[in-house]
Amino acid sequence: MTQRIAILGAGPSGLAQLRAFESARRAGATVPEIVCYEKQSDLGGMWNYTWRTGLDAYGEPVHGSMYRYLWSNGPKECLEFADYSFEEHFGRPIPSYPPREVLRDYIMGRIEKWRLREQIRFNTAVQWVEYSEETGRFSVTVRDVKKDVLSTEEFDHVVVATGHFSTPNTPYFEGLEHFPGRVLHAHDFRDACEFAGKDLLLVGSSYSAEDIGTQCHKYGAKSVTFSYRSAPMGYDWPESFEERPLLLRVEGNTAHFKDGTSREVDAIILCTGYQHHFPFLPDELTLRTRNRLYPPDLYKGVFWIDNPKLVYLGMQDQYYTFNMFDAQAWYARDVILGRLALPSTEEMRADSEAWVAREEACATADEEIDFQAAYTRDLVGPTDYPEFDIEGMAALFKQWKQHKKESILGYRDRSYRSTMTGTLAPPHHTPWMEALDDSMEAFLAEPEPARKSA
Amino acid sequence: MTQRIAILGAGPSGLAQLRAFESARRAGATVPEIVCYEKQSDLGGMWNYTWRTGLDAYGEPVHGSMYRYLWSNGPKECLEFADYSFEEHFGRPIPSYPPREVLRDYIMGRIEKWRLREQIRFNTAVQWVEYSEETGRFSVTVRDVKKDVLSTEEFDHVVVATGHFSTPNTPYFEGLEHFPGRVLHAHDFRDACEFAGKDLLLVGSSYSAEDIGTQCHKYGAKSVTFSYRSAPMGYDWPESFEERPLLLRVEGNTAHFKDGTSREVDAIILCTGYQHHFPFLPDELTLRTRNRLYPPDLYKGVFWIDNPKLVYLGMQDQYYTFNMFDAQAWYARDVILGRLALPSTEEMRADSEAWVAREEACATADEEIDFQAAYTRDLVGPTDYPEFDIEGMAALFKQWKQHKKESILGYRDRSYRSTMTGTLAPPHHTPWMEALDDSMEAFLAEPEPARKSA
Repeated sequence: MTQRIAILGAGPSGLAQLRAFESARRAGATVPEIVCYEKQSDLGGMWNYTWRTGLDAYGEPVHGSMYRYLWSNGPKECLEFADYSFEEHFGRPIPSYPPREVLRDYIMGRIEKWRLREQIRFNTAVQWVEYSEETGRFSVTVRDVKKDVLSTEEFDHVVVATGHFSTPNTPYFEGLEHFPGRVLHAHDFRDACEFAGKDLLLVGSSYSAEDIGTQCHKYGAKSVTFSYRSAPMGYDWPESFEERPLLLRVEGNTAHFKDGTSREVDAIILCTGYQHHFPFLPDELTLRTRNRLYPPDLYKGVFWIDNPKLVYLGMQDQYYTFNMFDAQAWYARDVILGRLALPSTEEMRADSEAWVAREEACATADEEIDFQAAYTRDLVGPTDYPEFDIEGMAALFKQWKQHKKESILGYRDRSYRSTMTGTLAPPHHTPWMEALDDSMEAFLAEPEPARKSA
Repeated sequence: MTQRIAILGAGPSGLAQLRAFESARRAGATVPEIVCYEKQSDLGGMWNYTWRTGLDAYGEPVHGSMYRYLWSNGPKECLEFADYSFEEHFGRPIPSYPPREVLRDYIMGRIEKWRLREQIRFNTAVQWVEYSEETGRFSVTVRDVKKDVLSTEEFDHVVVATGHFSTPNTPYFEGLEHFPGRVLHAHDFRDACEFAGKDLLLVGSSYSAEDIGTQCHKYGAKSVTFSYRSAPMGYDWPESFEERPLLLRVEGNTAHFKDGTSREVDAIILCTGYQHHFPFLPDELTLRTRNRLYPPDLYKGVFWIDNPKLVYLGMQDQYYTFNMFDAQAWYARDVILGRLALPSTEEMRADSEAWVAREEACATADEEIDFQAAYTRDLVGPTDYPEFDIEGMAALFKQWKQHKKESILGYRDRSYRSTMTGTLAPPHHTPWMEALDDSMEAFLAEPEPARKSA
């Protein structure tokens, strides 16, 4: 019987898995039959922008958390594929911080190049996965959302690549139910223009707060107040920004903070993170973790130790992204193809626990970056994923951190050298704070000639 | 073996089913063991206001579609329980159009009076229902959302009371993905204050559009433009309202309509209705219907003809509400208790088809009201649900329609006579357009003494 693999999700991780098998197939290997289920109507996962919030046209939770005018918040040189460079895709060097549409185009380019689209069943939401000890196979029940019909198929392996930035973590704060203005989670944020002229409160101090706050400022918010639980972000914010301790309660339009201060706000955006959420999995197959660099119970960060026929991709908190997903996918592929063997359950558990302990020993962002570099290096080593300068990329991440510290509104004007091609990225034609058009067309356009004075 | 019944949902319909069995039990009958699963943390279903939108604290779709400052859009005299009057609950007559909190209190009062809360398992979302031909029972798999643990129990009957105003029907209009402002479905509307001073476009011409539009006007929207597919609502709107034909596309802030006109708007609210959505049911048990007075495939509007151990409550489009749900629940109870027999499948199908044909022959709202009165009368007849003046209530509905026509902003200042107690409702102390505080406290307060002039 031909082996069958189900990949759940056609975002960066799921697509990496498709690409990994295709690479082996083109090199002459016999590969299993692959079905990739995707509830959206196109590929790209999170990078596939949607104006919808809440539930989609078919009553499924909206996957997308991205918003209009989102620009990469890290250098593209840190997320480059080792087998498909930005230069190959765009035919020329491009600046280091592209907007969403450009990154999506890049992700999709590799898939179109290898004609992998036909392996994806779009508009198909995974409803339920079950494992039978008897047959040693998984049954995967999916809903064709357009026809509203369920069907079930059997698979030898299941690769969960559904992401973990889609199910909002939304704590309650006293008084939110009476706040006379919009209250939303960052997952539902779509357009900064809505908040022009407003005093905003953003609860949270991680990437969502930082990026949504600066974006709202860029598009005309009157003020941005961040509220942090443990520590302020501490960037050198412009004058209309403030950082306050944790929000305690809301009374009318007034937000009260832990330090006894208060302030009037017009809207509240809860940038309070996401949950790992797998409603389609039975308890014994469900990964339970907070957002961290090494989720427990996974060997090599991907194999579900209790049943390693189940693979989770991209469930880590991430410095490295697309190329780390590739490294995971190549490793998972080689285990599935029998090229790499898994050790005993005890050895897997011990290995995983050692990594978890090593993560917990990290004290600084630089140490975390080195940790994830080491993890990625460990995966790439035994596979034929093209060698790339993982450690050089770690140096770029550290530079990026420093550049943000130097200028939170200006760091996107920096350029970095690709570790894949050696090319230094050209500067963008417009400083980020002035680049209001985030379309691919505008980004790739030649710089406008200097305007004549009137 | 004791018969077991699962009720899915503790909103008005599910609570009616609990109350129906309790009524029989107190009259001496032996009743089955009942478990009511409710994913929210309290009872009341849709009437249980939440500030949340999209997904809830546990990643489940938010049930609530209600908003702050929502007042009943029909007279309370038309939704009174026959076994528990408003006067009994509040200890005195109250005005005809109460705000949400007051209606929720009334619904909950009957449940607390009969101590039915303990039959409800809160924070428990239904994941999956299956029927076994072999055992003749259903297995119901639920998720304890707080513990994030699944469990499965067996039941002889399943009553689906999950409502059908929670899963938005959200069509796409060209250009929405570039609209520089908020785009939302009515399901996510929470606070009119957010839209003060704005030019709003509301797509739709049914209750959501009408009520959200008038409410935004009341709380300071600059203008309200409705866009209709087939016909305008035709009320005598104030000057800042307009009705336009269907939205064709959006370009920047400009909405273009089918008649060639256009207008600039700041936000777009899609009041485009809801879908019947039962993601926890296999295809062969799934009711598929648009929002109509007599959904097909249900005998007496409640029994799933292909397997009448499955009951659907409240799946109709509704003039009658709480007391119609009661009528359904009492009838379903009597079938489950063996007091009433179901005819053959063919007879059930013929009966259902006759009702569907009768619905389709209705040409006016008045005929629809009479249709639903006849349907409710047909259910109440053979049970011991307290006799009430269903036809007198139909006359109230027709008056209400007329009152809306006379004044869409003033109809809530009218009073109606209870068909249950014979009492004429007192007028409210404040005209609805001036009543900005929708709390129960404010509603039930004595009228303020006339202010002394300064």
